[in-house]
Amino acid sequence: MIDFDKTIFAPATPIGGGALIIIRISGKDCFSIIEKIFVSKQYKSISKTSTFFGKIFNDNELIDEVILTLFKAPHSYTGEDIAEISCHGSPYIAKQIMNLLIKHGAKLAMPGEFTQRAFLNAKMDLAQAEAVADLIASETAVAHKVALNQMRGGFSYDLKNLRQQLLHFVSLIELELDFSEEDVEFANRDELSKLIADIKSKITTLVNSFELGNALKKGLPVAIVGEPNVGKSTLLNTLLNEDKALVSNIPGTTRDLIEDTIIIDGILFRFIDTAGIRNTVDEIEQMGIQRTMDKLNKSDIVLLLLDAEKSNFDEKISEIKPLLKNQKLIVLINKMDIASEKKDLPDDITYLEISAKHGTNINELRRLLVDTVNVTKDSLNGTIVTNIRHYQELTEALDACNVVEQGLQNGIPSDFLTQDIKLVMTHIGNITGSFSNDEVLGNIFKNFCIGK
Amino acid sequence: MIDFDKTIFAPATPIGGGALIIIRISGKDCFSIIEKIFVSKQYKSISKTSTFFGKIFNDNELIDEVILTLFKAPHSYTGEDIAEISCHGSPYIAKQIMNLLIKHGAKLAMPGEFTQRAFLNAKMDLAQAEAVADLIASETAVAHKVALNQMRGGFSYDLKNLRQQLLHFVSLIELELDFSEEDVEFANRDELSKLIADIKSKITTLVNSFELGNALKKGLPVAIVGEPNVGKSTLLNTLLNEDKALVSNIPGTTRDLIEDTIIIDGILFRFIDTAGIRNTVDEIEQMGIQRTMDKLNKSDIVLLLLDAEKSNFDEKISEIKPLLKNQKLIVLINKMDIASEKKDLPDDITYLEISAKHGTNINELRRLLVDTVNVTKDSLNGTIVTNIRHYQELTEALDACNVVEQGLQNGIPSDFLTQDIKLVMTHIGNITGSFSNDEVLGNIFKNFCIGK
Repeated sequence: MIDFDKTIFAPATPIGGGALIIIRISGKDCFSIIEKIFVSKQYKSISKTSTFFGKIFNDNELIDEVILTLFKAPHSYTGEDIAEISCHGSPYIAKQIMNLLIKHGAKLAMPGEFTQRAFLNAKMDLAQAEAVADLIASETAVAHKVALNQMRGGFSYDLKNLRQQLLHFVSLIELELDFSEEDVEFANRDELSKLIADIKSKITTLVNSFELGNALKKGLPVAIVGEPNVGKSTLLNTLLNEDKALVSNIPGTTRDLIEDTIIIDGILFRFIDTAGIRNTVDEIEQMGIQRTMDKLNKSDIVLLLLDAEKSNFDEKISEIKPLLKNQKLIVLINKMDIASEKKDLPDDITYLEISAKHGTNINELRRLLVDTVNVTKDSLNGTIVTNIRHYQELTEALDACNVVEQGLQNGIPSDFLTQDIKLVMTHIGNITGSFSNDEVLGNIFKNFCIGK
Repeated sequence: MIDFDKTIFAPATPIGGGALIIIRISGKDCFSIIEKIFVSKQYKSISKTSTFFGKIFNDNELIDEVILTLFKAPHSYTGEDIAEISCHGSPYIAKQIMNLLIKHGAKLAMPGEFTQRAFLNAKMDLAQAEAVADLIASETAVAHKVALNQMRGGFSYDLKNLRQQLLHFVSLIELELDFSEEDVEFANRDELSKLIADIKSKITTLVNSFELGNALKKGLPVAIVGEPNVGKSTLLNTLLNEDKALVSNIPGTTRDLIEDTIIIDGILFRFIDTAGIRNTVDEIEQMGIQRTMDKLNKSDIVLLLLDAEKSNFDEKISEIKPLLKNQKLIVLINKMDIASEKKDLPDDITYLEISAKHGTNINELRRLLVDTVNVTKDSLNGTIVTNIRHYQELTEALDACNVVEQGLQNGIPSDFLTQDIKLVMTHIGNITGSFSNDEVLGNIFKNFCIGK
């Protein structure tokens, strides 16, 4: 629960290990606290935003020389008065400043509280606020683009537009209720049917985008399968090494990987259970059918590796095909460099001759991997749902649309009809936070980092 | 070697784990690069400093919405045009922005390069620049105060003052050389003698402050010794627990300790080899005399723990006394709570009755520990030398002063005298960087963090 009487602060950067630490303060007492601790010849009251060089004092004791940036409400992230103190990157200094802020009545912000205040002060809607966290967490060009688009309000605009159209009909139908004794019909039922069908179509597109959105956010799971010694571990190493060569050398940008991933054209691919692949080549014998099934079930893309020197292609492909559900199958004929003859596969199979050892056709494989998501990649320019909360609300909105449709077909009374339409509006509105309660907000913002 | 034609950039905060990342850019092309990548309706050319909200673009691709703060030369940290981009705390975004800066001709800064440029642009002298690194690394109130004082130029002012007085005499003596055929004496040799004696006294104070300064910077090493079961590990835990209770709960301010340390009145005390104390109480038996000696030699303060129930005090004290060099000895009579009678020790021994188990007199012990440095604690308000490079230059300046003194006594020719005085000036000047070469600068700045 947000207490707007309280002025909050938090470090907006990690403490220690950098040249600077930023401490961010927001709330109604922000500027009066600053005036008690900050001394600068340049300091003056501001109309919008300004930056000052000056000193932080605890009574007469100098704490640090800092750069102070002020943002006057409502021209700030939270919509409140904000101060950002940029001090030397010393944990000791940061702690002294934070203790000083506590002494003057500010309190340490909860995770996400700055953004939650921004939402509650109508600086952004809920979907935009959620996108801020997604943006910070984004690791790839595509995840970044989707989050940025959502943060900038593209998604929210579409939803508010739909809700507005529904509101229009609800108003008309409620007007009918006021004139119920006269049996008039202000809201054209055909137009309403058309609108509901239109909304259903749009929501369905959004719901369908979630599978892709989720995959783009979390990465597309890829399984590599094949007989022992067919070259699975070599292929994986070749793919990963190519990727590693692309990783920038800028200090601080590397991170520990907890699984094997590569990014191609801004899309993240995650390789499943590859630890086993690299520890042993006797994969299938060790795994058994159940573990192979588990691995396939977790994947969106299956790379089946075949040995160009063998003639068991049809057998291997028919073995795996019954195991697949919606996974995209790519057959890779490895060891093309030492094979005596070129192999052809049926037209309905996506396949590629490669040499994992020599890196031959690996770029083509990368292109094929990207193509598996290309089918809906156009939709990147539209809206993609990446948030499971949004997905659930949209699914429920879709159900509610169906109820409205049935009601229209059955000619149910106007007051029931408005209730049904309002349910659609509620689910759409929940996404942008038009209706929300403290519990929902608490759940959303608790996963933010502190200082945001 | 600094290439001022190059515009540099670096992250000024750690990348990842925070709400914000700051990327700092400095150099002559700074603003022209910003104009190629930053779009804002608010943007205008500035006279001193200003803050804008806007968007970073790579051609037409939006990278992030950011806060940009500009500092126009010479009103900046480096004395050059500086831009600070405050972007969302996403490593992906930071990397995109840094790649964009490289694309537009900026280069990643070397560690300390911003501060080195500040020095070379005469925004601060070398001693002040070094204090910036000390300030960031400072962990205690005292280390912080010393670094802050040095960064603000107090130390430099004293040194420049001494150098100025010497320069005055050198000028007068060189004037004598111009009139050498007339055998005049513009520089009063008695006054020069007095000045040299005065400078020697001031430098000696500074040289002597280094022992304390170094201890304050690195922490005062404390050894706890005593027989098995006398309560060494209990005492250590009691001291540490009291300290831990004082540690603030603000997230991000804690850090992994590599040894047991406590901070009392802003002074850091480091406990030596205490891992052994807590793993076993059979310390002396296990350690042997050599390891006990090693431990004592590494300490500035020795806490000798005695058992209030025993009567071997004189024996234990005479055992340890011959092993001590300059260490301050504090005798602690432990288990006072269960002792039958009060024990007295000779007047020349600093001692305290305590109960490590019940925490009795632990605050008195903390005060005693602080008192061991209190002798020179007044000098905190003066200048304390904490940097070994400064210490070495001061020691050499002192040697050079002695040579000047001897020369004056022996009435050496004026041209030799000026050479000797100039050597004093060189060593004093080296501290603030009045004379310096690339190699010295390289060594000093390579230990800075990147972005500073």
